[in-house]
Amino acid sequence: MGLRVILVDDERERAESVRTALDANGFQVVAVVATGSGLEAQVRALAADIIICDIDAPDRDTLEDMGRVSLDQHRPVIMFAQDGKPETIKAAIEAGLAAYVVDGLKPERVRPVVDVAIARFAQFQELRGELDKARATLAERKLVERAKGILMKRRGIDEEAAYAQMRGMAMNQKLRLIDIANKIIEAAELLG
Amino acid sequence: MGLRVILVDDERERAESVRTALDANGFQVVAVVATGSGLEAQVRALAADIIICDIDAPDRDTLEDMGRVSLDQHRPVIMFAQDGKPETIKAAIEAGLAAYVVDGLKPERVRPVVDVAIARFAQFQELRGELDKARATLAERKLVERAKGILMKRRGIDEEAAYAQMRGMAMNQKLRLIDIANKIIEAAELLG
Repeated sequence: MGLRVILVDDERERAESVRTALDANGFQVVAVVATGSGLEAQVRALAADIIICDIDAPDRDTLEDMGRVSLDQHRPVIMFAQDGKPETIKAAIEAGLAAYVVDGLKPERVRPVVDVAIARFAQFQELRGELDKARATLAERKLVERAKGILMKRRGIDEEAAYAQMRGMAMNQKLRLIDIANKIIEAAELLG
Repeated sequence: MGLRVILVDDERERAESVRTALDANGFQVVAVVATGSGLEAQVRALAADIIICDIDAPDRDTLEDMGRVSLDQHRPVIMFAQDGKPETIKAAIEAGLAAYVVDGLKPERVRPVVDVAIARFAQFQELRGELDKARATLAERKLVERAKGILMKRRGIDEEAAYAQMRGMAMNQKLRLIDIANKIIEAAELLG
């Protein structure tokens, strides 16, 4: 089974010829839609794998819509456009498109372009995932430290004892250390 | 002034026609070299901005060389190739190329391809920089916590006092907190 594609194209005739080219290249076009037509919901409803957008020049709204699909739905968006102005290219990349290809929608070239875009999107997602993880670890660590400080002060105990007590609570309540930390911070805020 | 380009191409005649096309598109080709010829040193010596590689099918060594230029010299590498096999594409992206374009080296299309690759490379560098920073912050935090624990134990003081003392040392010695933490950890290892 080929990748499930939503094709975004505002020109009906052009859309049909692109759909034919995609079908011939082993893609499965599950919908052809116009820009600004609730793309996010369609991506979910149709379980699309990728979004291919064929457009003359993307405006800011379209780039934002596509960026949201990329960021929130974790689907690569590949845009074929005519507009090769440096500022448009910059905006397209900043919006999070997996590929922005100027004047390149040729049936025989679409497959490798999509393959490159998917590989790059996966790489980007992985890097972003690592960044999210590192930041979450840092944030959790700060909260655990803060909760430990609260216990030390309230119970007049040292760091090791506070940490041991928190670990004990986590074990008893079958919670993670960060959950216990959050509970302690909340409780301290409640009691003032 | 155009971007300074090193062109990597093993076929002399093809290289000359590509060089002409790049010149005509506002690039400044500062060298034409073959694959496997000490690219990293040339990038440094010639202060190249980007590397454009024209090749039929990249082997693993070439991809590694290009990846090293990208990663260590922080320069985008754009590869135009004929080989559109999924595994080659995957290897090219994993190697860190800023663009891998199959059958797309047309004079009139090279400018937007390079602009997209540069924008994407900058985005990737930024994300990687943020990840490095988050990981460094986390590592530093762990070291500061460890040093604080050492002080608390050795001097029989509480967390706040240990932290205040470390900040005082940093201030007096005009060092960062992390440097003081490292000194404390080293001292503790020395004294056992």
